[in-house]
Amino acid sequence: MAPLRAVSAEEIESLAIGAWILGTGGGGSPYLALLNMRALYAQGMRVSLMDPRDLADDDLVAVVSNMGAPLVGQERLTDPRTIARAVTMMEEYLGRRFRAIMSLEIGGGNAVQPFMAAALLDRPVVDADCMGRAFPEAQMTSFAIHDLRMYPLTLVDVRDNAVVVAQAASWKWMERLSRTACVAVGSIAATCKAPRTGKEVKECAILYSTSKAIRLGQTVQAARRAHRDPIAALIDAEGGRLIFTGKIADVARRATEGFLRGTAQLDGLGDDRGRRLELAFQNEFAVGWLDGMPRVMTPDLICVMDTVSGEAIGTETLRYGQRVSVVALPAPPVLLTPKGLEHVGPRAFGYDLDFRSVFA
Amino acid sequence: MAPLRAVSAEEIESLAIGAWILGTGGGGSPYLALLNMRALYAQGMRVSLMDPRDLADDDLVAVVSNMGAPLVGQERLTDPRTIARAVTMMEEYLGRRFRAIMSLEIGGGNAVQPFMAAALLDRPVVDADCMGRAFPEAQMTSFAIHDLRMYPLTLVDVRDNAVVVAQAASWKWMERLSRTACVAVGSIAATCKAPRTGKEVKECAILYSTSKAIRLGQTVQAARRAHRDPIAALIDAEGGRLIFTGKIADVARRATEGFLRGTAQLDGLGDDRGRRLELAFQNEFAVGWLDGMPRVMTPDLICVMDTVSGEAIGTETLRYGQRVSVVALPAPPVLLTPKGLEHVGPRAFGYDLDFRSVFA
Repeated sequence: MAPLRAVSAEEIESLAIGAWILGTGGGGSPYLALLNMRALYAQGMRVSLMDPRDLADDDLVAVVSNMGAPLVGQERLTDPRTIARAVTMMEEYLGRRFRAIMSLEIGGGNAVQPFMAAALLDRPVVDADCMGRAFPEAQMTSFAIHDLRMYPLTLVDVRDNAVVVAQAASWKWMERLSRTACVAVGSIAATCKAPRTGKEVKECAILYSTSKAIRLGQTVQAARRAHRDPIAALIDAEGGRLIFTGKIADVARRATEGFLRGTAQLDGLGDDRGRRLELAFQNEFAVGWLDGMPRVMTPDLICVMDTVSGEAIGTETLRYGQRVSVVALPAPPVLLTPKGLEHVGPRAFGYDLDFRSVFA
Repeated sequence: MAPLRAVSAEEIESLAIGAWILGTGGGGSPYLALLNMRALYAQGMRVSLMDPRDLADDDLVAVVSNMGAPLVGQERLTDPRTIARAVTMMEEYLGRRFRAIMSLEIGGGNAVQPFMAAALLDRPVVDADCMGRAFPEAQMTSFAIHDLRMYPLTLVDVRDNAVVVAQAASWKWMERLSRTACVAVGSIAATCKAPRTGKEVKECAILYSTSKAIRLGQTVQAARRAHRDPIAALIDAEGGRLIFTGKIADVARRATEGFLRGTAQLDGLGDDRGRRLELAFQNEFAVGWLDGMPRVMTPDLICVMDTVSGEAIGTETLRYGQRVSVVALPAPPVLLTPKGLEHVGPRAFGYDLDFRSVFA
């Protein structure tokens, strides 16, 4: 890949599809961010993607995300100005300019957030993130797993409220302080996380995950165009595993403490007829029980997709009657280390389960 | 008064007594801050008091307070290092040095907080505050009444968590953002409020309130030494009004949303025998009803004091059986203007009452 290359409008469309699959139910629907990008591209703006290996060690990289409960993000619309403001506020706080912008999580709308900021601020997007998927909490990143510094963080809302978490005693404290500020402004806010050096990104980020999300989207799009099964195409291309095919029978969902929590019950169809899958989520799908036995769990990616179109379904848009396929995709290796599992394994979500990968 | 004069150890003792009276039940007990000041003075430190008229127009003044629920302040002890850190963090954020430090509220322990920071940072304390008493919320200051800018604010806790509210859409938003951060760190935190210029302090602060608190303390101490009635001495010296004498019959109290809220029922003694006073509080006493009729209300100062010793009683230390006198003291004139009453009148506390001063 060339050091810097313009991302085409078609690739942005693919990115939105692929990122929504990698969101594993969370990260927020990319649809509104995609609409923003279409508008920016229609105005002639183009965003470049940067190979992380081309960052200088002392370059400074902004790590952005829209934080909060996905359900709220359906009502308070995302916009490029607010996420760009989180970045410039961090630049003001640091007194330094960012070389580039990257995504906190490649899953869901947060894959597109750096593109919105990058378009307004004329900076490239780094082809990387620090989750390789989406996760609900601040300490669930490869940067946290590598024990990098967790502050400062800037958080802004649409009213021009702005908070800097200048120092935090731990990653858990950073999560708590930023989460309460997020809840105070209405459970959705634009954030710029702790700045990272080029060296930190190269050593500790999940590299080339932006390209991966684009590739996933292209796989699904190609299958659709060829009238082939997009689920099978995805599994084939990405080494995934089909966990369950069924119909959503029940959804219990509540927006609480700045998260969207709940469960979904799926009744099996086809080969899975007569079986039941229960999925628990905190923004993202965390654990799936097949007929009461743990079958799939975080950090393996649990992707719920429309069986026909291959479109991913978020935890905020699950509804009774949807025909869905549940697919597991492999997690980035750093999440599977003992230290990684402390941060993002089932116990990190309150489930007393030893992690067992469906790919083991 | 000389531009800068050293405050004696005896004056610090008087300040603690007087400030606790001006706290009208809130601001936190000055006792722990007083113990800190005794220790600092025993180490040879001395704090100077500065006449606000001697501030240059472009001097920068730090406005400090310990924020939170007074009940929590009884358990998590105040310390000079934390309040000093709130000040230095603001200096780092601004890239400017403060000329002096002043109190947000002269009522309660917050009258002593600037002395603790001043001792550690070798700066004078300005003889002023911006409430002339204590109030529970950020927008209840003379600075807010004068529509001065409400940000930035720094907030730190004992664990080295630190938050900067860099921008707020309004005083109410500043209150909400700083309050939720305060609750997140355990409902008590050291804060440095929006910095003020010398010009702003001279034009918009409540001037010479530190001296006033010292004077009130000295009045009570002199009466005690002379075996005279300290309540009568205070009323006489400060133009106060005796509202009620009685015994506390019931207290309902809860720490909620970062505040201490509740009510106290007082049964009359002496001339008030057979009557009942009900006091409602949100950190500070807000309204008193005599036999069901509004008798005294904010912003008039409602001071509950031990009938024998003249020691003030905080809303967190009210208890059944205490023999108390309820005294009203006049509020600073700025609080009595129509704009002032919008910020601190009974409706600002949720009581649908037209303000009527006992001094009218």
